[in-house]
Amino acid sequence: MAQAIHMMVRVLNEARSVAFYEKAFGLTIADRVDFDGFTLIYMSNPEAPFEIELTVNKGQGEAYDLGNGYGHVAFAVDDLKVEHTRLVNAGLTPGDIKEMAHNGQPFGTFFFIQDPDGYKIEVLQKGGRFV
Amino acid sequence: MAQAIHMMVRVLNEARSVAFYEKAFGLTIADRVDFDGFTLIYMSNPEAPFEIELTVNKGQGEAYDLGNGYGHVAFAVDDLKVEHTRLVNAGLTPGDIKEMAHNGQPFGTFFFIQDPDGYKIEVLQKGGRFV
Repeated sequence: MAQAIHMMVRVLNEARSVAFYEKAFGLTIADRVDFDGFTLIYMSNPEAPFEIELTVNKGQGEAYDLGNGYGHVAFAVDDLKVEHTRLVNAGLTPGDIKEMAHNGQPFGTFFFIQDPDGYKIEVLQKGGRFV
Repeated sequence: MAQAIHMMVRVLNEARSVAFYEKAFGLTIADRVDFDGFTLIYMSNPEAPFEIELTVNKGQGEAYDLGNGYGHVAFAVDDLKVEHTRLVNAGLTPGDIKEMAHNGQPFGTFFFIQDPDGYKIEVLQKGGRFV
């Protein structure tokens, strides 16, 4: 059966993106593979085997068009407020914490943050269906 | 620390997308949560806790713009050729199997397939760094 192992996004600046994902989510470089026209960087942390793959196309100067179809990748954390504060103190700019209800019951508590290329990332409080 | 838990894509037709992800990757619906303006469908299989979240925005008629920044989500399988044949026999249209080398050594063997909205999905042979 098929096992979900990574998602890939194209980024303009390797150092900038690697620094963001490390600072924001504790991801470190599992592998960096350099080809003639592009570089692949696989990042993960001990919480999950699922990797974020960054593709850096050499010579790409123009910002990527993110479209309106892809939404986000999501991370769950133990304490959302602590995490939000930590990100702000680290100089990042997460959005406000929001709560979402379904049929009058709490469904999810989360905020969004954008990576350096503008990709949206959801950060969810662990609990309910988000464990 | 942050745990990667899902990625979200917006899709036009719930039944069509659910059927695709079930047929192609054995994902089944872990949760389906209906709101006034949209429905969220979380899909996973026993191979990984990571979920694909489908968002269906009610009243969305126009195809989503997929842009050129987001790349793909990837699944690893035990036998890529068997999986490719299975998908073709199931009436799906995976691309050709390709091999990628790095410094003269095998790096990855894979094919791509598109979901009903055109999102690209990479299917990789397990082995090497892709386990």
